[in-house]
This record gives sequence, structure tokens and C-alpha cells, in this order.
Amino acid sequence: MRIVGISAKITEESIRLVSSLSETLAERGYEVLLDEDTCLAMGGAGPNCAREEIGSRSDLVITLGGDGTLLSVARHVPSGVPIMGVNMGTLGFLTEITVEELPHVLDAVLDGRYEAEVRVTFDVEVRNGSGTRSFRVLNDVVVNKAAPARILEMWIEVSGRFVSSFRADGLIVSTPTGSTAYNLSAGGPIIYPTMGAMVITPICPHTLTNRPIVLPDSVEVEVGIVPGKENVILTLDGQEGILVAEDDRIFVTKSQETVSLVQSPDKNYFDVLRQKLKWGEGRWHRTGRTESESS
Amino acid sequence: MRIVGISAKITEESIRLVSSLSETLAERGYEVLLDEDTCLAMGGAGPNCAREEIGSRSDLVITLGGDGTLLSVARHVPSGVPIMGVNMGTLGFLTEITVEELPHVLDAVLDGRYEAEVRVTFDVEVRNGSGTRSFRVLNDVVVNKAAPARILEMWIEVSGRFVSSFRADGLIVSTPTGSTAYNLSAGGPIIYPTMGAMVITPICPHTLTNRPIVLPDSVEVEVGIVPGKENVILTLDGQEGILVAEDDRIFVTKSQETVSLVQSPDKNYFDVLRQKLKWGEGRWHRTGRTESESS
Amino acid sequence: MRIVGISAKITEESIRLVSSLSETLAERGYEVLLDEDTCLAMGGAGPNCAREEIGSRSDLVITLGGDGTLLSVARHVPSGVPIMGVNMGTLGFLTEITVEELPHVLDAVLDGRYEAEVRVTFDVEVRNGSGTRSFRVLNDVVVNKAAPARILEMWIEVSGRFVSSFRADGLIVSTPTGSTAYNLSAGGPIIYPTMGAMVITPICPHTLTNRPIVLPDSVEVEVGIVPGKENVILTLDGQEGILVAEDDRIFVTKSQETVSLVQSPDKNYFDVLRQKLKWGEGRWHRTGRTESESS
Amino acid sequence: MRIVGISAKITEESIRLVSSLSETLAERGYEVLLDEDTCLAMGGAGPNCAREEIGSRSDLVITLGGDGTLLSVARHVPSGVPIMGVNMGTLGFLTEITVEELPHVLDAVLDGRYEAEVRVTFDVEVRNGSGTRSFRVLNDVVVNKAAPARILEMWIEVSGRFVSSFRADGLIVSTPTGSTAYNLSAGGPIIYPTMGAMVITPICPHTLTNRPIVLPDSVEVEVGIVPGKENVILTLDGQEGILVAEDDRIFVTKSQETVSLVQSPDKNYFDVLRQKLKWGEGRWHRTGRTESESS
Repeated sequence: MRIVGISAKITEESIRLVSSLSETLAERGYEVLLDEDTCLAMGGAGPNCAREEIGSRSDLVITLGGDGTLLSVARHVPSGVPIMGVNMGTLGFLTEITVEELPHVLDAVLDGRYEAEVRVTFDVEVRNGSGTRSFRVLNDVVVNKAAPARILEMWIEVSGRFVSSFRADGLIVSTPTGSTAYNLSAGGPIIYPTMGAMVITPICPHTLTNRPIVLPDSVEVEVGIVPGKENVILTLDGQEGILVAEDDRIFVTKSQETVSLVQSPDKNYFDVLRQKLKWGEGRWHRTGRTESESS
Repeated sequence: MRIVGISAKITEESIRLVSSLSETLAERGYEVLLDEDTCLAMGGAGPNCAREEIGSRSDLVITLGGDGTLLSVARHVPSGVPIMGVNMGTLGFLTEITVEELPHVLDAVLDGRYEAEVRVTFDVEVRNGSGTRSFRVLNDVVVNKAAPARILEMWIEVSGRFVSSFRADGLIVSTPTGSTAYNLSAGGPIIYPTMGAMVITPICPHTLTNRPIVLPDSVEVEVGIVPGKENVILTLDGQEGILVAEDDRIFVTKSQETVSLVQSPDKNYFDVLRQKLKWGEGRWHRTGRTESESS
Repeated sequence: MRIVGISAKITEESIRLVSSLSETLAERGYEVLLDEDTCLAMGGAGPNCAREEIGSRSDLVITLGGDGTLLSVARHVPSGVPIMGVNMGTLGFLTEITVEELPHVLDAVLDGRYEAEVRVTFDVEVRNGSGTRSFRVLNDVVVNKAAPARILEMWIEVSGRFVSSFRADGLIVSTPTGSTAYNLSAGGPIIYPTMGAMVITPICPHTLTNRPIVLPDSVEVEVGIVPGKENVILTLDGQEGILVAEDDRIFVTKSQETVSLVQSPDKNYFDVLRQKLKWGEGRWHRTGRTESESS
Repeated sequence: MRIVGISAKITEESIRLVSSLSETLAERGYEVLLDEDTCLAMGGAGPNCAREEIGSRSDLVITLGGDGTLLSVARHVPSGVPIMGVNMGTLGFLTEITVEELPHVLDAVLDGRYEAEVRVTFDVEVRNGSGTRSFRVLNDVVVNKAAPARILEMWIEVSGRFVSSFRADGLIVSTPTGSTAYNLSAGGPIIYPTMGAMVITPICPHTLTNRPIVLPDSVEVEVGIVPGKENVILTLDGQEGILVAEDDRIFVTKSQETVSLVQSPDKNYFDVLRQKLKWGEGRWHRTGRTESESS
């Protein structure tokens, strides 16, 4: 490793952290590359690049902020470049590492002694007669109405087989990583992050039996919009909006590119779930009751 | 193929069908083996055996009835013995073949020209200090209170990692095949039937964030009961009840045994879903609107 | 009754029906008033007015179409003017009367022999320092993001008491009448149409415990938007969009104006529910089993 | 007020509290009446009676414990006798008053200076040819299978009108007070506690469109069991089980008896909801952001 990219959500605290982190890395002989916004917030000196490029120009990427910050970088990072998601106080599903853990984990990563979890990403293609637009997501792609108040009518095919048409506010195609994000709010299941799955979850479907469907990620999901209705927007990882035309078809498949998330040494996936979803706090597990509750 | 096992839900219509089917098979040189109840309903003559044994003593098993009839046989059928699920009027998730399709599909199967879908089953073990009891399910294993009105407190581990404790009416561990059964009523997702997944769905959980979790079927799920509460019953495929003691641990893993379901030539999985769940009937798909609806 | 207003969703069939209906009414000495679109579709002659005014200028309003057609008229109809919702083929929650029933029900209404169900409507006020904008809804008012992909942050007070802040796609405040519309898709309960209730249902809430709340309709619901986020749109009965500014407050109360829906003589509310939601078709009720199902 | 009834969930802490409370009350000239279990735990001396009778023999009832303790007493308390629900550490929906608040609130109640919230209760009647059994609930009555693993088939009528048949694990008929208990776990809505409502919520219904229905509490709900299936148990407030025969009909109506709950001076209903359901903690409300969250 030679170049360490850093991307931060700009706050007073994160700026201080970028500063001390940059110093430490420089002292140890690493080149530090900031994203443009972070660089600007630091006073503007030094090498920097667009957030979309930081992944392809670094050997390690550190994000400081929440899951949103990590997502804005991660879907542009090539396979194999590890990403360290450091949260600034609130544990995230993707940003498990605390500021306190940062020095210790960073040492380990720079020494090559770390565990990274490989997460699948999805390729999203929007095709029509005149061409194809390609994107990539780590969490989810959402088919949404461009304006509120109208219902959207879509149809779905899975690897060439017709599934159904749906009338709904929209449709989420989520990776396992994204299953605890928007998918969960829309009634979808939690999916273990490293399994080979894709989940299709309708948003407020008109037909109540239109329930989430979990598919193997070897399939190709195709979504078409019933014409004659209004504009449709594709949202990538809850961040980027893509206008879709009536004759566009949307294709989602597993990407060849993956994302490597550096793990916190102190917590596993279920620990994060339990904490984020406020499960069974202080209640029983196999070693016995840890809290009493009057009833 | 030499021996064809037949198991039927006893109705006037099914008896007539078993009768004609037996005749046809006998004429063509096959030995017919009925389950005890079916044999009794037919007048009692001829070779017969317990429903649990019919799978291991036949080269092909035909069930006549609904999904319940097929389930009562299937979890005792060894890998490789194909099962033809013939419904008697109401399409089932597992019994796709209609009485009309039966002769044609049977010919194909006897000639070896058929498609069978291989479905995973789960091994369920109940262990304590004094031994292990073993079972197998095609749909699901449910941890339930033996009596109503009391909440059950359980904890779960996945491959040795603590997930959470839950307070709920019960807990479903479902195969993809079982995902459209009890799991769906309890808020779980639909899972494509041939994917390698396991879904854990709490039944009416006390904590609203205790949502269904989809796991790869390579894991071992362990469920323990918080002691001091009442009796617990394990239910296999919604049919068989097993009393569980306080110090029992329940282990669920993928079985080495699978089930081969003969496919209807006329419908695929999504066709069955669409019909059973009354989706998008007569609405749009890629070939255009097939029905108008006033709005 | 002297003036009969007619508003139709324009289709070939509805045009024919308006034509014959107008003739019959004219022969019997009633004045017919069409809405502008319907009038235009009929060739343009005769008295007509905007859809918003037809209620205040008629003694009886007939709508031909679906629930959407009735809704577009009903929220502008003064108390006491009966509305006949005639569906053009698909039973609606608000349009129970079939084309076949129309002549018979119309006779009854014109003779004053009819049952009307009085439905509550809500007043919606958008207030800020510079003034108040006022609206009325029969189904629901929805607070929505103006653009997809971003989460909305709101807070709610009920009659001056702080309830909570919510992060969600939006928020529905629904009448009992609207409870079977968008509210149902978003996870809200069915509410008996003539009860004095208001239901607040968050749309895809970030916090899973943010569940629908049913309140007496004597309360005042106030919704505020957390500033610094994007534009917000208020949608009335799923049809009309109102842009809301950051410093606007939204107030919902029971209106003094009600809507009188002429009842079909042949079905009650539960009959409509059962048919629309495909409940218990052909299954048991107190008079015994009406259909068998294999299992 | 002359007689103060006390009923406690037996713990070391509650015993100490009953002891000091009894002393204080005796000093001030009140007669203290304990329930049998509490009396036994106190050493056995002094006036006592069955928990079911304490309400009808006291002028004020104090419960020490959780919601379960209060429920076990409350459904036997006549209208007008106030109940003080004191929680022993965990805030309950029904037991808002903390141990710290107890002396202050008790003073106020004994002086007649207190706010009590009047909660509706339901009468439950089980009728067949040979007679009627009558019960009363503060939270809910649940129709349940006596054994797990089998589905229950019921039909419902509301004030003589057929609603539907249901296949489900069971059915909850809940008061507004009970809406935040089992009803919430089964997918029902929160209902403001003093509104005149009844909610019918199916438990894990086979048909996904069988959604909770909110009715005015002026109706009579009748539930019948489809014969030929197994035993059914009625559960009252999650505590008492009543065996129901095939030809029994279950009737639920609003009771003439109400329950008066003494209010905590420091929190209102929404405060309790927010705390119990972990809503919007530390987030925005009208007075501005109270906590930041990284994103």
C-alpha cells in the first residue's frame, strides 16, 4: 500500500481527525489523497480528486462519517481496494469502526493483518433502442415516481420469465448489504451480507400480496415501466438520481466488482444488527438472564 | 422404475382416481404400493405400507390431494425418488400438476422424460445431555408454545455466534420451499425455491424490530428456550408435534437429503406464485395491457 | 331536486351512458349539468362547469367511473348534496353502484327513497406567517417529498401535545373513508367508514416502531417539517399537489362539511370489503361450508 | 376513601414497598387490604382477599409491578374505583407511576386531587344452547387454538352483518387500551386510549389481505368457530384461559363498567408511547434539533 484515500463528511470533528490522520500517514511514508470537498474543508492544499475517483486512485480508502459517506465512495471503488468505514459517533451498518478503534485497525490494515468482508455489488443498466447507460450500486437501486401522488405501474421479469406487474409507489432491488437500509423500511427481510442474494421489494404496493421476493444473485432482473404514466427516476444507493424514459428497460445483475469492507475486530454482523435494531438488550441468552423486567 | 407409491387424501374423487391409476400402472407392468389409509379406503387389498415408508420403498411417489398430503409423505422420501404432486382442484405451491395433466406427465416420468426440481430439506435435531432426536422437514420447523396466552422467550445462535434473544409467540425456521407457507403469514419473504437459503421468522414478536432474517443454508441455526417458562412444542411441516424440554437445544441445518418434485410442463414457479397470491391478474406486462380497469 | 350534475371518466362506454342518462333526466324534467371535460366529450353543447363547482351547483351528483372520478368531485361537494358513485365495471370502495343498478337506484333517489351514508371529510390548513391556505379531503392528505431518494423528517403534535418526530418517505393522515386507499398500502388499518376517527400512518418509516396511530376525529393534528431539507408536497385525495415551504405548518381537523354517498341497495360495507380484498371467498360462514378445498 | 387495596408482584423490593406503604396508610387512618399472595409474602397477618375481589372491596387500588399485575386486578374492579399502577422500574403502558412519584401521587389521590383516565372495558360472553358464560377484559380477548400447528377457521359478524371467515392462528379483539399490547405484535394499529373503538386483528392470517379492522365500540362482534377442527381457547387479558366448544359463539361488546387509571402528573400518553416504542429519541421537534446524527 502506498496511497491512502480519505473521504469525510465535513464536520469540525471529522476535519480534526482528517488532519491528524493525514499527518500520521505522511510520517509513515504514505501518500494521502483527499476527495475535493474534504480537501477544500482542510484549506485546499495537497493532492485531491473527485469522490467518484478516489477508489480507483488509492490502495486503501478511509471514510469518516456515516453509511451515507461510505456509500457515496464505495460504489466507485474497484474490487480489492479495502474500505475502512469509520463512524463519527453513531454506529452504522457499514461503518462499524469507531474513532477509538481507528488507530489500532489502521495499523493492522497497513501491516496487511486485517479481515475484510467481501460484499457483492450490482450492475444496473438502463437500455433502450439508442444505447445503454451503466451504473453500479452497493446498497440498492430504487425505481421511483419522479413526482409524488401518482402510482407507478411496472412489470418484472427474472431471467426472461415474467413475474408480475405491480402497482406501487416504487420498487427496490437490494443487495444483501442494502437489505437493512431502505428495504427494511419497506417491509423487506434482513439478508445475511455475504450470501448470494438479491431482494425485490415493492414500496407500498396496491396489491397487499405483492410481498418481497428473495432471489439468487445469479439471475437477471428486468423492470419495465407501463407507458402512458409519468416520469420515473432510478435512485442509486439513495443518492444519485437517473431519469428513465418510457421505453427504457432496467436490468439488474450481480457485478463482477465487489467491495471489501475492513471489519471491526470487536463486533460481528449480529452484534451490529442487535445494536442498530435495539434487539434483546439486556435480555436472556445462553449464559443466563442479564436483566430483570417487572411484569 | 418398477414400483410406484401412491398416497392420497381420501375423498370420493381421489379414490376413483387411485383406482384408475392403479389399473393403468398394473397393465403397464408396474407394481403399485399404497399407503395404509389409501389402501383401506380402496377396500384393503394389495401391497401397502405406512405413509412414512412409502418413499423408501418406491421408485416414484404420486400424491393426490393438496400440499398437506405431499408434505406428509415428502419429508420421508429419500433423495432421487421423484414425487409427483397432483392437486385435486386447487393449485398448490407443491402440487402444481392437475388431474388433467396427470396422464401426460405420468407417461413422461415413466419414460424418464421429465423435469424435476430439487428442493433442499432441513435436518432438525433436538439434543440434550441424554441424547439426540432427529427429524427432517421440507417446509419448516416451528418452535411454539404448547399452550396459548403465554409469550415464549428464546435465544438464537447462528454457527456459534449469538444473534439475539426473542420474545414471541414462536419462531419459524423455513426452507425456501416453505417460505410461501406459514412464513408468509408471519411476515416473512418469498424465497426462490432452489436457492440455498434458510429464513428465520419470529411469530408476533414482542419487539417490533425483530424482523425475518435470511441466511445461507450452510449455517447451523441453534435455538434455545429460556428456562422457567412453560412447555414448548416443535412442529414439523405443520404436521408433526414434538415436545421439547427446557434443557433441549434445537439445531437446524441443511440436510444431505433432497426432494425431487416433478414439474408441471405448463407452468413455472412465478406462474404458480401469481395465481396463488392473486397478483397482477389481467394487468400489464411487456406485451401490453390485457385488461382495463376504471379509475 | 331540480339539477343533476354528472361527471364522468371519459370512455366510450361512459359517454354512451351519459348520453342516455341525460336524455332520461331531461324527459323527466330535470336539468342536467355536466363537468367541462364530460361536456366536451359529448360534443360540447349544454350547461357545464368546472369539476370543482359541480357539487355546489347541483342537487344530486352522479359520477361515472372509478373511485378517482368520485374523489375528484366529492371534496368540493357541500354537505347534504347526495353523490351517486356508479362504477363502470370494477367495484370501488366509493363506487358501489353498478351500471345495472343505476336506473333503479336513480329512481329511488329522485323519489327521495334512498339511504345515504354520511362520510366525514377533513379540513387541511397550511399556515405560515403570511397567511393560511385551506383545502378539504374525503380520503387523505399525504405529506410527501417533492423528489424521490431523500428521507423526510417531520414532527407531529396532536391537539398541542408533542407526539414524535419521524423520518420517513412521508406521512398519511386519512379519514375512515380513505383507510382502504393509500393508508392500507402503507400498512394502516381498515377503519369502519362512519366512525369518528383519524389515522396517521407513516410511509416507510426509518424507525420500525413508528406504527399507524388511530385518533378520535375531535383532535387537531399538526405536522411540521424539519428545516434544511428539500421541498415538500401535500397531496389531497391522491390528486392535487400543494407545494409546502419550510416554515409552513400543516393542520388537519374534522370538517364541518360531510359527504353523502348514496348506498347500493344490494351490498353493505363488509360485502364491498370482502369482494375488494378477496377475503374468504367461498369459505365458511355461519350457514356452513360453501366450498371445499383440498389440503 | 377508607379502604386501600394493594396488589403486588412479589419481589424483595415490592415487599419492602408494600410494608412501608401499609404503615403510612395505617398511620393516616386508612384500612389496608392486601391480596392473598401479597399478604402471604408479608407474613400473613391482616385483612386480605382474592385478587379478583380486591377491587370490589376497596375505595382505591394500588398495584405494584408491571402491566400484568395491574391487568390481573383491573378487569375485576368496578367503575369509579381508581387504580394506581406503580411500576417497579420498567415503565408500562398501564403503569406510568414510578416509585419516586408514588408518595406525591398518593397524597393527591387521597386528597381527591388527581386526574384519572377512564378506560373502556369489554364484556365477553360465550353462549350456547345451555347457557352463557360472562367475562370482562381491559386489554383484549384472544381466540386461540388450544394446540399449536393447526390453523383455526373462524367467521365474524359485526352487529349481525357477516364480515368474513378467516383462517389464522387466532384472532384478537382489543380495546384501545390493549392496542399497544398483543395487538401491536400481530400488526394492529395503536389506538388512542380514550376513543370509542374496538379493533379486530387476525393473528398470522392465511389470507394476506385479512388486515386489522377498527370499529366503533357501539357494535357487537360475534365470532364463531368452524366445526370439525380442534379445541379453541379464549384468553382474557393474556392471563385467563377459557375452553370453548364447537357450538359456542363468542360475543364482544363494550362493557358498562369502566376502569379509572390514576395519571402520572409528569407524562402524557404520547410521552409513554415515545419511550416504550423508542421513537424519535433525541431527534427533532418544534423546538429544534436536540441531537445530531452522522450520515
